[in-house]
Amino acid sequence: MLIVMKQDATDAQVEEVLSVIRGLGFKPHPMPGATRTAIGITGNPGAIDPRHFEMLGGVAEAIRVSKPYKLVGRDLKHEDTIVKIGDVSIGGSVPAIIAGPCAVESYDQTMAIAEVVASAGVKLFRGGAFKPRTSPYSFQGLGESGLKILAAVREQFGLSIVTEVLDTETVDLVEEYADIVQIGARNMQNFSLLRKIGQAKKPAILKRGMSATLDELLLAAEYIMAEGNYNVILCERGVRTFADHTRNTLDLSIVPAVQQRSHLPIIVDPSHGTGKREKVIPLARASIAVGADGIMVEVHNQPEQALSDGPQALLPEMFRQLVTDVNAIHKILTQPEHAAATL
Amino acid sequence: MLIVMKQDATDAQVEEVLSVIRGLGFKPHPMPGATRTAIGITGNPGAIDPRHFEMLGGVAEAIRVSKPYKLVGRDLKHEDTIVKIGDVSIGGSVPAIIAGPCAVESYDQTMAIAEVVASAGVKLFRGGAFKPRTSPYSFQGLGESGLKILAAVREQFGLSIVTEVLDTETVDLVEEYADIVQIGARNMQNFSLLRKIGQAKKPAILKRGMSATLDELLLAAEYIMAEGNYNVILCERGVRTFADHTRNTLDLSIVPAVQQRSHLPIIVDPSHGTGKREKVIPLARASIAVGADGIMVEVHNQPEQALSDGPQALLPEMFRQLVTDVNAIHKILTQPEHAAATL
Amino acid sequence: MLIVMKQDATDAQVEEVLSVIRGLGFKPHPMPGATRTAIGITGNPGAIDPRHFEMLGGVAEAIRVSKPYKLVGRDLKHEDTIVKIGDVSIGGSVPAIIAGPCAVESYDQTMAIAEVVASAGVKLFRGGAFKPRTSPYSFQGLGESGLKILAAVREQFGLSIVTEVLDTETVDLVEEYADIVQIGARNMQNFSLLRKIGQAKKPAILKRGMSATLDELLLAAEYIMAEGNYNVILCERGVRTFADHTRNTLDLSIVPAVQQRSHLPIIVDPSHGTGKREKVIPLARASIAVGADGIMVEVHNQPEQALSDGPQALLPEMFRQLVTDVNAIHKILTQPEHAAATL
Amino acid sequence: MLIVMKQDATDAQVEEVLSVIRGLGFKPHPMPGATRTAIGITGNPGAIDPRHFEMLGGVAEAIRVSKPYKLVGRDLKHEDTIVKIGDVSIGGSVPAIIAGPCAVESYDQTMAIAEVVASAGVKLFRGGAFKPRTSPYSFQGLGESGLKILAAVREQFGLSIVTEVLDTETVDLVEEYADIVQIGARNMQNFSLLRKIGQAKKPAILKRGMSATLDELLLAAEYIMAEGNYNVILCERGVRTFADHTRNTLDLSIVPAVQQRSHLPIIVDPSHGTGKREKVIPLARASIAVGADGIMVEVHNQPEQALSDGPQALLPEMFRQLVTDVNAIHKILTQPEHAAATL
Repeated sequence: MLIVMKQDATDAQVEEVLSVIRGLGFKPHPMPGATRTAIGITGNPGAIDPRHFEMLGGVAEAIRVSKPYKLVGRDLKHEDTIVKIGDVSIGGSVPAIIAGPCAVESYDQTMAIAEVVASAGVKLFRGGAFKPRTSPYSFQGLGESGLKILAAVREQFGLSIVTEVLDTETVDLVEEYADIVQIGARNMQNFSLLRKIGQAKKPAILKRGMSATLDELLLAAEYIMAEGNYNVILCERGVRTFADHTRNTLDLSIVPAVQQRSHLPIIVDPSHGTGKREKVIPLARASIAVGADGIMVEVHNQPEQALSDGPQALLPEMFRQLVTDVNAIHKILTQPEHAAATL
Repeated sequence: MLIVMKQDATDAQVEEVLSVIRGLGFKPHPMPGATRTAIGITGNPGAIDPRHFEMLGGVAEAIRVSKPYKLVGRDLKHEDTIVKIGDVSIGGSVPAIIAGPCAVESYDQTMAIAEVVASAGVKLFRGGAFKPRTSPYSFQGLGESGLKILAAVREQFGLSIVTEVLDTETVDLVEEYADIVQIGARNMQNFSLLRKIGQAKKPAILKRGMSATLDELLLAAEYIMAEGNYNVILCERGVRTFADHTRNTLDLSIVPAVQQRSHLPIIVDPSHGTGKREKVIPLARASIAVGADGIMVEVHNQPEQALSDGPQALLPEMFRQLVTDVNAIHKILTQPEHAAATL
Repeated sequence: MLIVMKQDATDAQVEEVLSVIRGLGFKPHPMPGATRTAIGITGNPGAIDPRHFEMLGGVAEAIRVSKPYKLVGRDLKHEDTIVKIGDVSIGGSVPAIIAGPCAVESYDQTMAIAEVVASAGVKLFRGGAFKPRTSPYSFQGLGESGLKILAAVREQFGLSIVTEVLDTETVDLVEEYADIVQIGARNMQNFSLLRKIGQAKKPAILKRGMSATLDELLLAAEYIMAEGNYNVILCERGVRTFADHTRNTLDLSIVPAVQQRSHLPIIVDPSHGTGKREKVIPLARASIAVGADGIMVEVHNQPEQALSDGPQALLPEMFRQLVTDVNAIHKILTQPEHAAATL
Repeated sequence: MLIVMKQDATDAQVEEVLSVIRGLGFKPHPMPGATRTAIGITGNPGAIDPRHFEMLGGVAEAIRVSKPYKLVGRDLKHEDTIVKIGDVSIGGSVPAIIAGPCAVESYDQTMAIAEVVASAGVKLFRGGAFKPRTSPYSFQGLGESGLKILAAVREQFGLSIVTEVLDTETVDLVEEYADIVQIGARNMQNFSLLRKIGQAKKPAILKRGMSATLDELLLAAEYIMAEGNYNVILCERGVRTFADHTRNTLDLSIVPAVQQRSHLPIIVDPSHGTGKREKVIPLARASIAVGADGIMVEVHNQPEQALSDGPQALLPEMFRQLVTDVNAIHKILTQPEHAAATL
């Protein structure tokens, strides 16, 4: 914490601030400058609300210095976290591809899409059995019978299953069927759900909220880790801005920012990030090029008949091309001379 | 739904679109223009995803026309909803003031603040027993013992109680103690919670999410109403923007926008909207001046010792002035000549 | 400037930072904490780019402390600036109302509207002769003949004239006719124009850019003041957000924020801020209630025939009611007991 | 234009709207639906302000259908515009790289950086002689002597020169020295400057404003083209959002969106888009992967001594690696099977 005094703060006001800091058991470090005095604080065990000091006379501003998260940070754990699901890794040297329909709609549809995904060499299958919908009158998912279809996909194709959990009541049920549970953007700060997932045993994909800052995303992950579940995968899926040419504005700059501050893997969902199929492939390529640990995309064999988000689903041949592109771009990033230059 | 064809769309492409519309059982209305053709659609029972048509050849754009909400809309119910809690109304001719501490911290603190609130003639008391906090390491509220303190406030001062509910597990418990349950901004799209509140009997304050559009706010209220709870009060509390001089950007323009489309009452929370005490009073006055049905503000007798959000809490004498200002401004808005001029 | 070292920064890295600071001629103030070291800097004559230090080894973050503006700040000049135009003041104890059409369209229209404005007791008349339009094919204003009509308004009704200047080429021309020159939101960072206005003799209204921070707004004013023109009036006119129920999101919280940091007066334009007439009156009332030094609104006698922005123009009887409301609300804010309580 | 009537609109109100439309000389197309009537309009020569109709009784909403731009659109010109500067093309099959210092600071610095750029096989050199700065007290560029240094770079290294023009007064001067003139983000809606550039003969790079929509960007380009200069290159450089981990939020989704609607080439500036060197390389790679026609990056031989924006400048060896990566990624995008799959 750094307290910046106003230019016209009196000596008495500076003294008062020093005395308040000492009274809290912290150590003040006054730094008189040419035009104003600043006061550093050390010795505080955790974050202090800057506004507490801004109430004192003569104080211009109080600036928070320490980051409020611990377990997610690189300060505490230097090496990258690698989440393992069967023989697949997220966060390691190979980019993970998670693909499947937005929603599980029927046994036949899900099997047909799973066949497309598996035959492209992809190992992780996504599909929603519980769907969060803006309107109460929209299709809300098949529920447990959807989960059973996903279990059949795993059995038949050997794919690991990623599926969303919407509330604490269904965490146990979803965890029974899923290999990775997904927390959606609208639930990023549903703290009861985060804690419950923290007590679960399956890895979790945590999607960034529509207007979440980097710190908020990391603190949401901290909620999960604080309960003991260390296998958290962050996911960028677009944020809300004034821009009206896209459903959400995919913020790829968060990928290197996360990698600098946290050891957790980060993937990108360009399907929800853009809302239209034609933009999914270019932005999926860009996600890998920016250095993400993987992508999550929607694939559908008959998108014109999809019950939700059909227009953003890739057609099978588009998906196969995407897998090729992703692998080719990733190869460029891992060439030895490349690695050397960016170290 | 309106389909806009590209300038160079062929007659065959137009025919194809007409045929798809008819195939869905809807009625197409082609309108050939000088440079391009547009096609209206009627006969659809609910909303259609515009992107379904944008996949067809020759289509430039598909534009949604009908609003997706029903129960919250003025189309279905013209007259304003007035929510009654004891002898207080929210949405009627008198602006409602809801005041109290951010969090219930102790019996003594809560009683002291309740005394301030009651003695200013205010009837609705707020205080959080369950607190949603960005960090897992911050104070999370007193839980049920906090609710018991609130019950004591009601008994001693005759104040009605507004308190937040965080998750479905605690809805029954909170409802037992509260007169109005509050759904926080982070939970605006926690659909399981909305449904559960819809089944509850107590009125609900629904706070706008940090980046929620007007439609999303109204659809969240629709979730509650669709379950049978019609006593919903909307609450603006600031949205997230690039602006860095305020914690959130209070969007007062949503008040007349809500009033135009919905019969539900809307109040404003300038305390969370601004994050700093000096801004709360001006923005509370502005909230009433813009026509809101009430305000919710934080008051604290010793804000420098508050466990959460102390810097945004009003001091007792500030609060009393605010009540005076609110009533005076409201009086201006309800003078007969004023009403006549804005009809 | 405050340098925050990483938790694992070595002593050598701390020494290197200290040495760089000394090498620049500044004074470092190291503050070793329990988990990390922070280093304050004093003695720097102006702002330093924080990123310069973030390039050094072991540095986690560099935080700018001093504000980069001087002439606009309260640190240098405590008392409020009052801009006088004839016998009207902006920034004093009476709220200023500036009213008129969006664009000067014809002699008759302008005179008819001026009659409405003058008869409501308002002294400042606005009207654009040069119009900034998003499309090159929209009406661009009458140019000098529009300015001549404005001069006729001044002569006939004794109104002072506010009109926009679009580029450096026309500053001299506009200044010849205007009593106050207005710089539009799109030109807030047109630095050549700001400098030229700084050399002009007429007061200037500087509108906040669509995504300008408070600091950027104040620095734009600093450009004008640095050239010698101290009569600058800031104007909030709405910022760009994701919200789709309003053209712009009027950010009234900037009013108390400006008043805290700067001595310059600040007014609000709720007409451009909302884009629709029904919202102009509520938000104009709110602007006064929040403490703005005035409002600027569009009035039109025949808005359905206006060449630009007719739908946001107030009808004459609405405008008269607004003037009454503004004065009544302002009176509440200036009652003695009110002033005492908010000091 | 499509007029949507309210559910309870009377027949008389519908008739009134039809009559107003006919009165304007346009053709109404009423479409009575189950719950409400919609009315299409054709025959209007240009865009109509939707708000004009929203003032009529019984009207719920008026929706604009036609896009307001012409020359920039693909409707009028199908094939991609390729801008040629000497033997380099922007918009063709090879991605363009524009590199150099943020500002021209001295002859020696500029020559040293030009040597780095030229030796990497890059043909386009950037460097600012006139710098737009938020603060009036920051370095504002060397002016004409900076332009002369750029001319020396062209002569010695055969590089083509890209440099920014800040105002109409200096357009002729800058055009004399530059091969491409650049219009900065803050000037995107400086319409006088756009028109003047439209009359110039050199190609122009038009940077997207900090909160410009796609339509506004295209209309700004339309201003230039409407004056006769058809060689316009659009440039994404990041938009302003709530996100605080990056200077601006680079919006790569605008690249495919521009390519769908306009024939103009679009490049990306990841240096200003991110503000920090470590993020420039990943986002430059992503820019090419998303399909941009080129990138513009800052390179500096001694960034720690740069007078502006040093922290975002690439070091020479980073730059050389970037050129390699860009070419490798672009190669993937242009493989025959790739092209086939995305058609």
